[in-house]
Amino acid sequence: MLRAPREIHLETVPDPRIEKSTDAVVRVVASCICGSDLWPYRGIQDVREPRRIGHEFVGIVEETGSDVGTVRVGDFVVAPFAISDGTCINCRNGVHTSCLHGGWWGSPDGGSADAGQGEALRVPLADGTLVALPDQPDAALVPSLLALSDVMGTGHHAALAAGVRPGSTVVVVGDGAVGLCGVLAARRLGAERIIAMSRHKPRQELARAFGATDILEERGEEGAARVRELYDGIGADAVLECVGTSESMGQALASARPGGMVGYVGVPNGAELPIGQLFGNNVGVRGGVAPVRAYIPELLPDVLSGAIDPGLVFDLELPLDRVADGYRAMDSREAIKVLLRP
Amino acid sequence: MLRAPREIHLETVPDPRIEKSTDAVVRVVASCICGSDLWPYRGIQDVREPRRIGHEFVGIVEETGSDVGTVRVGDFVVAPFAISDGTCINCRNGVHTSCLHGGWWGSPDGGSADAGQGEALRVPLADGTLVALPDQPDAALVPSLLALSDVMGTGHHAALAAGVRPGSTVVVVGDGAVGLCGVLAARRLGAERIIAMSRHKPRQELARAFGATDILEERGEEGAARVRELYDGIGADAVLECVGTSESMGQALASARPGGMVGYVGVPNGAELPIGQLFGNNVGVRGGVAPVRAYIPELLPDVLSGAIDPGLVFDLELPLDRVADGYRAMDSREAIKVLLRP
Repeated sequence: MLRAPREIHLETVPDPRIEKSTDAVVRVVASCICGSDLWPYRGIQDVREPRRIGHEFVGIVEETGSDVGTVRVGDFVVAPFAISDGTCINCRNGVHTSCLHGGWWGSPDGGSADAGQGEALRVPLADGTLVALPDQPDAALVPSLLALSDVMGTGHHAALAAGVRPGSTVVVVGDGAVGLCGVLAARRLGAERIIAMSRHKPRQELARAFGATDILEERGEEGAARVRELYDGIGADAVLECVGTSESMGQALASARPGGMVGYVGVPNGAELPIGQLFGNNVGVRGGVAPVRAYIPELLPDVLSGAIDPGLVFDLELPLDRVADGYRAMDSREAIKVLLRP
Repeated sequence: MLRAPREIHLETVPDPRIEKSTDAVVRVVASCICGSDLWPYRGIQDVREPRRIGHEFVGIVEETGSDVGTVRVGDFVVAPFAISDGTCINCRNGVHTSCLHGGWWGSPDGGSADAGQGEALRVPLADGTLVALPDQPDAALVPSLLALSDVMGTGHHAALAAGVRPGSTVVVVGDGAVGLCGVLAARRLGAERIIAMSRHKPRQELARAFGATDILEERGEEGAARVRELYDGIGADAVLECVGTSESMGQALASARPGGMVGYVGVPNGAELPIGQLFGNNVGVRGGVAPVRAYIPELLPDVLSGAIDPGLVFDLELPLDRVADGYRAMDSREAIKVLLRP
């Protein structure tokens, strides 16, 4: 429960139960803290009343409503960070985050609002929302499966939006968990060269492990000049913007070549899109709230086979009763991403 | 010569000649007036000194410099609205409007600046810039060939940037020559339904002839609501923005479905890109100064075969000495687009 900015505690709440026929109850195996959880934690987003929090988890189905068909009791499931029915026109278009009947963890849906940083929770629209694994996974895979809840799918969305394809030259702006997963996604899609912009040694190392071919510590115009130097004097085919600030978007736009694309998934927090600059250079921008539900079926086999290991972004694991320590570590950037075990 | 806002005249200037070994001299068969020519004409763009004007023409090569190889004396050529070498990295990427050595008609390039609304002109970087036809074309094809200089390629750029493909639902904002060519380009790329937003009967008719399946006269939120009504309640897969104002871009963004794309080619004149709206709906934007040189090889066969007839956008043809009447007709929107014959 987040009671006020920087006041987060493990508290006892009533056990979740089926409230609608399309619900499931899931016992959480692992959940994690998202960069966006820090907004209410920091008070940037209002905390008007105590709220449950967390939108990334994996777990075991404990109970299903009478209309649930595709997930069964005992299934190991991955939950994406948004609730979706999987059947509306936007879901069919692969834009599950714009589901006509969906919603967000911890937001009212006519039943009790529940969220992922806990021991168990009520999952609305279980058939559309959850992805069940064919078998119980090896315990060692849990972090990488959990990464499919958000950061890996979000990095993949940035890479797709930026049009990464075999042979692309890529720049990734942002060395948080999403940016690092963006590096991994770009490599997976066949990028030939990937520049990760990072000044933090451990993050640089992880970026290299994920497939970055170059690391740049320079920022601003100097950073953009270095990008051009490395990429034929013109910049990158594809830039992944994974922060959302004015500086990071400026860096991203300045790093794209004429005709290039910026895929952006950093929630806009000061970022702007200067149309004159975009128009003059034919630089496109595409992105938004990543429909990670759409990508789990594609990415899951690569996690199960070990081809990708996005779970490496979790550099701190804590028991749920130390959730406050987890938020502090994320807030101070001591940890890239914190995994919580009930 | 444009001497001052609204002062345009046919004047005698020195005959063009080869100044660089990569030049050609071209005798103009037909040229035309562009919407963007109206900016200096209206005084929105400064006219500091008398200047030659015009950047869309077709003609016959009269003379070539010693380093010109792909176009020959006597060739019928189409000239795109920008000068490009065809060999630099940006040209090889298909972004000829960002050519590292290119330029603009009527702008200094170290030789005398020349432009298309005249009897003959000096063409810099002739090999990269001009596209020669295999044979002399039928006179009836001249307007459609001339449309490849700008408006047809620009409409095609908008359609490509918006990701139009077979089966797409499309909206075209703007019923000028570019918007109408955008309709034609979208149909050519296989769009299933195309809404043209127009309130002008003759333009509506041409839009229908070019492949529009629906015409909308409503604007603003009412227009966007009608688009959603026609397209599954959510909006269009692909929107072509062919105006550049705040209103037209707002209309375009409001007409795209979640996950849709707006291809924009209207030179920004008040248009803005509200990142929060784009991000929330995963609506992408891509576009800019169209690299029409890149598209002539693809579009030319369809013009020569009669599969597309973009020349229908010319609804007024005048001799060059009535150029002032042509500008007046464009300025008052009496004419969609004016063709000038020397």
